[in-house]
Amino acid sequence: MADEPTTALFASISTTAELRAATSDEAWVAAVLDFESALALAGADAGVVPTEHARAIADACARAVLDPAEVARGARLAGTPVPPILRALGDAAGDAAARYVHLGATSQDALDTAAMLVSRRALVLVLAQLDRACDACAALVSAHGDTLMTARTLLQPALPTTFALKAAGWLDALLDARGELARVRDERLAVQLGGAAGTLASLGPSGPEVTSGLARRLDLREPRLPWHTARARVAGLAAALAIASGVAAKIALDVTLLMQAEVAEAFEPALEGRGGSSTLPHKRNPVGGAAVAAANRRAGALAGLLVGNLAHEHERSAGAWQAEWETLGELLQCSGGSLARVAETLEGLEVDAARMRANLDAAGGLLLGERVALHLAPSLGRIAAHELVERASRGALATRTPLRDALRQEPAVVTGLGSTTLDELLDPTSYLGSAGLFAERALACYRETRAAREAPAATAEDGR
Amino acid sequence: MADEPTTALFASISTTAELRAATSDEAWVAAVLDFESALALAGADAGVVPTEHARAIADACARAVLDPAEVARGARLAGTPVPPILRALGDAAGDAAARYVHLGATSQDALDTAAMLVSRRALVLVLAQLDRACDACAALVSAHGDTLMTARTLLQPALPTTFALKAAGWLDALLDARGELARVRDERLAVQLGGAAGTLASLGPSGPEVTSGLARRLDLREPRLPWHTARARVAGLAAALAIASGVAAKIALDVTLLMQAEVAEAFEPALEGRGGSSTLPHKRNPVGGAAVAAANRRAGALAGLLVGNLAHEHERSAGAWQAEWETLGELLQCSGGSLARVAETLEGLEVDAARMRANLDAAGGLLLGERVALHLAPSLGRIAAHELVERASRGALATRTPLRDALRQEPAVVTGLGSTTLDELLDPTSYLGSAGLFAERALACYRETRAAREAPAATAEDGR
Amino acid sequence: MADEPTTALFASISTTAELRAATSDEAWVAAVLDFESALALAGADAGVVPTEHARAIADACARAVLDPAEVARGARLAGTPVPPILRALGDAAGDAAARYVHLGATSQDALDTAAMLVSRRALVLVLAQLDRACDACAALVSAHGDTLMTARTLLQPALPTTFALKAAGWLDALLDARGELARVRDERLAVQLGGAAGTLASLGPSGPEVTSGLARRLDLREPRLPWHTARARVAGLAAALAIASGVAAKIALDVTLLMQAEVAEAFEPALEGRGGSSTLPHKRNPVGGAAVAAANRRAGALAGLLVGNLAHEHERSAGAWQAEWETLGELLQCSGGSLARVAETLEGLEVDAARMRANLDAAGGLLLGERVALHLAPSLGRIAAHELVERASRGALATRTPLRDALRQEPAVVTGLGSTTLDELLDPTSYLGSAGLFAERALACYRETRAAREAPAATAEDGR
Amino acid sequence: MADEPTTALFASISTTAELRAATSDEAWVAAVLDFESALALAGADAGVVPTEHARAIADACARAVLDPAEVARGARLAGTPVPPILRALGDAAGDAAARYVHLGATSQDALDTAAMLVSRRALVLVLAQLDRACDACAALVSAHGDTLMTARTLLQPALPTTFALKAAGWLDALLDARGELARVRDERLAVQLGGAAGTLASLGPSGPEVTSGLARRLDLREPRLPWHTARARVAGLAAALAIASGVAAKIALDVTLLMQAEVAEAFEPALEGRGGSSTLPHKRNPVGGAAVAAANRRAGALAGLLVGNLAHEHERSAGAWQAEWETLGELLQCSGGSLARVAETLEGLEVDAARMRANLDAAGGLLLGERVALHLAPSLGRIAAHELVERASRGALATRTPLRDALRQEPAVVTGLGSTTLDELLDPTSYLGSAGLFAERALACYRETRAAREAPAATAEDGR
Repeated sequence: MADEPTTALFASISTTAELRAATSDEAWVAAVLDFESALALAGADAGVVPTEHARAIADACARAVLDPAEVARGARLAGTPVPPILRALGDAAGDAAARYVHLGATSQDALDTAAMLVSRRALVLVLAQLDRACDACAALVSAHGDTLMTARTLLQPALPTTFALKAAGWLDALLDARGELARVRDERLAVQLGGAAGTLASLGPSGPEVTSGLARRLDLREPRLPWHTARARVAGLAAALAIASGVAAKIALDVTLLMQAEVAEAFEPALEGRGGSSTLPHKRNPVGGAAVAAANRRAGALAGLLVGNLAHEHERSAGAWQAEWETLGELLQCSGGSLARVAETLEGLEVDAARMRANLDAAGGLLLGERVALHLAPSLGRIAAHELVERASRGALATRTPLRDALRQEPAVVTGLGSTTLDELLDPTSYLGSAGLFAERALACYRETRAAREAPAATAEDGR
Repeated sequence: MADEPTTALFASISTTAELRAATSDEAWVAAVLDFESALALAGADAGVVPTEHARAIADACARAVLDPAEVARGARLAGTPVPPILRALGDAAGDAAARYVHLGATSQDALDTAAMLVSRRALVLVLAQLDRACDACAALVSAHGDTLMTARTLLQPALPTTFALKAAGWLDALLDARGELARVRDERLAVQLGGAAGTLASLGPSGPEVTSGLARRLDLREPRLPWHTARARVAGLAAALAIASGVAAKIALDVTLLMQAEVAEAFEPALEGRGGSSTLPHKRNPVGGAAVAAANRRAGALAGLLVGNLAHEHERSAGAWQAEWETLGELLQCSGGSLARVAETLEGLEVDAARMRANLDAAGGLLLGERVALHLAPSLGRIAAHELVERASRGALATRTPLRDALRQEPAVVTGLGSTTLDELLDPTSYLGSAGLFAERALACYRETRAAREAPAATAEDGR
Repeated sequence: MADEPTTALFASISTTAELRAATSDEAWVAAVLDFESALALAGADAGVVPTEHARAIADACARAVLDPAEVARGARLAGTPVPPILRALGDAAGDAAARYVHLGATSQDALDTAAMLVSRRALVLVLAQLDRACDACAALVSAHGDTLMTARTLLQPALPTTFALKAAGWLDALLDARGELARVRDERLAVQLGGAAGTLASLGPSGPEVTSGLARRLDLREPRLPWHTARARVAGLAAALAIASGVAAKIALDVTLLMQAEVAEAFEPALEGRGGSSTLPHKRNPVGGAAVAAANRRAGALAGLLVGNLAHEHERSAGAWQAEWETLGELLQCSGGSLARVAETLEGLEVDAARMRANLDAAGGLLLGERVALHLAPSLGRIAAHELVERASRGALATRTPLRDALRQEPAVVTGLGSTTLDELLDPTSYLGSAGLFAERALACYRETRAAREAPAATAEDGR
Repeated sequence: MADEPTTALFASISTTAELRAATSDEAWVAAVLDFESALALAGADAGVVPTEHARAIADACARAVLDPAEVARGARLAGTPVPPILRALGDAAGDAAARYVHLGATSQDALDTAAMLVSRRALVLVLAQLDRACDACAALVSAHGDTLMTARTLLQPALPTTFALKAAGWLDALLDARGELARVRDERLAVQLGGAAGTLASLGPSGPEVTSGLARRLDLREPRLPWHTARARVAGLAAALAIASGVAAKIALDVTLLMQAEVAEAFEPALEGRGGSSTLPHKRNPVGGAAVAAANRRAGALAGLLVGNLAHEHERSAGAWQAEWETLGELLQCSGGSLARVAETLEGLEVDAARMRANLDAAGGLLLGERVALHLAPSLGRIAAHELVERASRGALATRTPLRDALRQEPAVVTGLGSTTLDELLDPTSYLGSAGLFAERALACYRETRAAREAPAATAEDGR
């Protein structure tokens, strides 16, 4: 509305201007008009709308300049924004054509199809951010195969790993989320056309043909049946968005934890004016990480609502459906916004490989205790070996001495080791297991996905 | 931002323009400036800010015209909108005073206090809508003491009741929610002032005095300790808002169910252009009911997030806190919007007392079966009496005859009744129990609350 | 535990004993043992475990009788139930074999794989209930092609439809949910094996081979990488379960609304002792519907938690992972329980076709107003036609006369109709649009699914 | 049920056996019997139940040994467990008294009152755990007034603080949560008595008197009206439980973060067999922290459900109400369980004060940068001073030199400091602001609360 206040103050932190635009009032109105235009033209193809009137409607949709304030006022009275849009459209199309505006459709047909169009357009942005994140992640995997670091479980140092494997885990999760989002986009976004009660009665025998034409023109799926109260499409989309956001949040959380001054192994990029505290000059805050963590909490709540909101009454619902509108838009924003923030972080990530190695070495061999225990198990038994190493580890921790020294004081170690030396066992570079293989697997999957997205498929994606 | 798109298309259906304004970017920026102004003046009172500089800051806050676009851009970099506001404020206050802007405070102090101010101002609107709803409800209670209708449990007719009692149940729940919202407003909204780490170190020994002054000037509570990571205030406010919204949704659901054509006992007010279907000329949709049901689903999800979001890290959180901002604003909108819609519905509610009575009578006495069974219990035993009436009821339903006739065919009824006649037992007007008393209790509580809210307290409420 | 209290009092209402057993302590312990057995045998195949020790371990797993009380006590200390299970298993396998128990694995490997096994086994039960519901639904579609009834939108009568189409909508949604559950079962349930930090270091170069063998032996997918902190598998399963539960809730809600005494078009089956009120002899409560509505609310909350819970720290999480265990089990129960209740309802659904038709006719032609308006639109213009019919409809409602009479008083109707008679336009049997086609489409999809599930695929499903 | 499987495997990790017992089937059945007993006796007081029959019923309730399997089976048919309990109770009371069992009440009266009784009894356990946590926290506050440590915001070192203030923040939040739980317990737990439709019709004019007597006998509040569909009591209780759980989770998260090997400032108590990894001998896992984090996630989801679940239909709901039962019990478990785990942690917390100080000093004065900037502001201007210190801080970080050295290279520092030395400014012990005062405030509040809880009030609490 002319005097409608803005709501970007906080949203600007965790979303992008493009995502806000793609889910704005303007975007919804435009999508409703796309529906009405395609409906009229599909009606003409099926012979239920005279061609010249269909063209007049399509022209009016293309030209329409609606006053959002007017639409919003009408929406409050009608319960949906469709009637005021139709009124304006009828005026623009002229009396003769106006009779054929919205023919056969109900408000929910227009809004559900618009929701699918808005979602697909926003998904282009979401996937673009996800792909940026993948690209940056893949570069990290490639660059850090030899960067040894501490694997941490339950926030405690566990074993040596490589930063390549850590980033490969991120990449793999991103690719997995991408696959699901792409599947939803390609297979689950469908037109809605059922008319007032899901029978398409007012289109007579031409209903299914109009639906097919509508789907073809909007490049959306044609559903078996109208889905006015079968909302798995919305719920499945919501879940996929929350999962993508959750993967972003997992990465952001890892970086936030690595940025801790006491760990200091990796950092969000330092930008002018970024992350500075209003009071503390020395601080380097995980601004991106906090924004992603916040957006993901919201994504979880919004998706939880949509995933649990399938009990729509009879042929069209009084409340459950209406709860989807803003929720879906905000969820698209949160999910895409999380991914944008994480892409930014990954592209500029400062990795301190030396500190990673120093932290690993500072553990004084404790992280290789598992290996020593395994090596001792054949001679001592698994449990006794485990207990011996645990005892030595506690001793080493208490006296702040290297595990090597503590182990040397255990007679069983000397006798149990055989030809392998303690130094060999305590060398992290030879205890990385399948880290390299796993990193390579993630990269291979990434290369395949990138090839697919850069091939004709990419055109389809944007062209839609 | 100049080019920031609007987001009122759907929000206009379930919220009010006032609520959107009260939780907008502009409202937040204004509240941050209120904080900075009061902080400077409280600092002057405590002797840590020279009086002329404090005045200059307060003047700058009063005059400040901030470009929201600029603030939002700065917010993305800094992670909160406070630094860009402070920059603009410093410029406006002049170099000498600028040194004392935000003295002793951290960004979270400004934003948390702003959240409390925004909440209190929005709560004035929320409570005003709630009071409208109470007024309308009380009028219904007063008017419908003799309006008999069907009480329904598990969506099945159960017993006779009055519409006064039904409305009294709504009123009682509204008053209960009001009490909780008022308690939260009066006891739980507190200033935040802890400085960068909750110690108020940069204010030296004057910290607590500044906090007291700040609380006094903003008319908010002074907390025992800074509550940067103790978020029960926010969670408790969220719960109270969700509960108020939930009461609105309960009322709206009842009206939606009563509006069903097959029930047709009460209706949302008919307004020009309201509730008309885009395709079905005869329909009278529960537009308000659907809007409230939708807003309440969203309120539940948003409140669920805030109620489960207390695990903030250390002295200030990286994510949990940031998730509060938009969520709280939207929740205030949903809750106030639900209440506004319900107030509108209750004020114009069309009650069809004749249809209520007709529906009750149409049950053919079945609803009085409990009473007959109770009357028969002393002679037949409770279970045998229950079974007899159940048998007669099923017979009456199957043959679509009145229960009276079915009961007369049971010999035990004739012998068991004693002097009371079946007609007496099957008369609903004499089987209303404490309906009148309960309605009167709700009205008494309402009168008390209204007296309190119209007394000086009302001034306090608005004046805050 | 011997003295552990039971928790079936309420669960018995909304779940089945089979589902409770499939997600019980015993089921989890058995699944952990299946993991350990398969791990040892896969280790033998890969040459890292001597064959006789692997056999001893597998034998011990098969024979193991664990005291749940003991396991639970150990679980509290260790933070997971795996260590106490391993202790008992080591004892049972004998010292020599004990060294090879759990070789290469971490507790999360065992529990995550167990979660996948428990899920797959419970999914067999969930899908069996879903298939029962489909079978019953399909029978309703087949039987009720000519059963005319009122389509209701926003809980208001809208247009004529058939009960076949209503049931087809249920069937279509069930089949859609089935497809997604089956996809998750077939493509997303994977073994977990990463060792203490996701590198499989303790298995040396044999890690991937052991993982492959483990997957083959347990008939689960082999993941590209260990997924200790990539939880999309769990989130996706949760969403699919919530969606299936939501479809059940949609059906149950429709039946509950149809059971309303004022509507009385369909009823849950009457069972001895079922749905009787403790006080009201005549009542026929939607006991199944209430149970499903309750279970689905819980399913939504539980799934919302899992869908929003992907931010696991580093290589294994301290809290997010642990929140999955009970939540997943309860969700499987709620989802399968909802479907079981709905299957029961659909199998015994009492459909009152005469009442459906009577309710439709009672609307006095109002539901055909859309058709009249469409027919008048070419001559009057769409909006004028809509307004004329709306005016006539309100008149008919107000005077309780048939729409036919009200329309006859409008001169424009007489002139505008042309050769078609009002009676033709107001006959619902000729205004069903594509209802028949849509019903047939749902049945065709059902037949295909049933054929697939009864083919060899069925064996795979049970045999897993 | 005799063959009902147990579900303690995971619950044993995050809850206590006492809490599981207090919310078990047995506890609910006992509470229903308490209701029926008090109802009969209150009926006798009011003259609607013959005294000897009331006594017989009360005796039967006291003696009743119900077979949970039988009750659960009946519950599935009836939709609530009350009818099978009543059948058994009627049998036990004898034919004459049986007629007066449950007189005037509906199933929901029994179950809602039972829910309040179960809640109050479980709240005794919840509050006992909370009090343990407060006691332990208060001891930490008292002991660590001189223990300097790093305050961390956004997971970055911010300023010096004391461990006393950190623990005081925990204590304050616990006391706040306690206040709210006690308020709910004392003011919001009420009996339910409305009869089949909320009119108490079957008790004639004696209804309110029976309600009063019931409330007195069960020591619960008497509500103004029956609250069958006014569920703010349940929602408010849920919110208070989630908040208490959230405070526990905040403390547990802080400890988990402090336990990180790179921080190592505080540790959960080391117990035999506790926190050991199944594979890593050296690890010391935050087992308690993970359990609390998990339980709190579940508490949030469960409370979110109850807080958003107020839209109950008409006089008694078909689904929303039924969703409360298990959810409330689990929430009581999660909340009490979180607090128990945190109490355990706090009682045995190992605080490494030396490491705290070492970490603080290792920051090389960076944390005092704010103070230097403030001191320079009068001469340099606030922004210039902030920038100077920021520049020096980045230099110090980059070259790993103390901030002191970097600052000395800035000419403006030398001139701007005046008589204060850099060493004075960089001494953390003189920059603690109001840390001591705040800690003392929390302790004062604790002492007051403890005095109140140990006074007669304590008796009331247990005696209820």
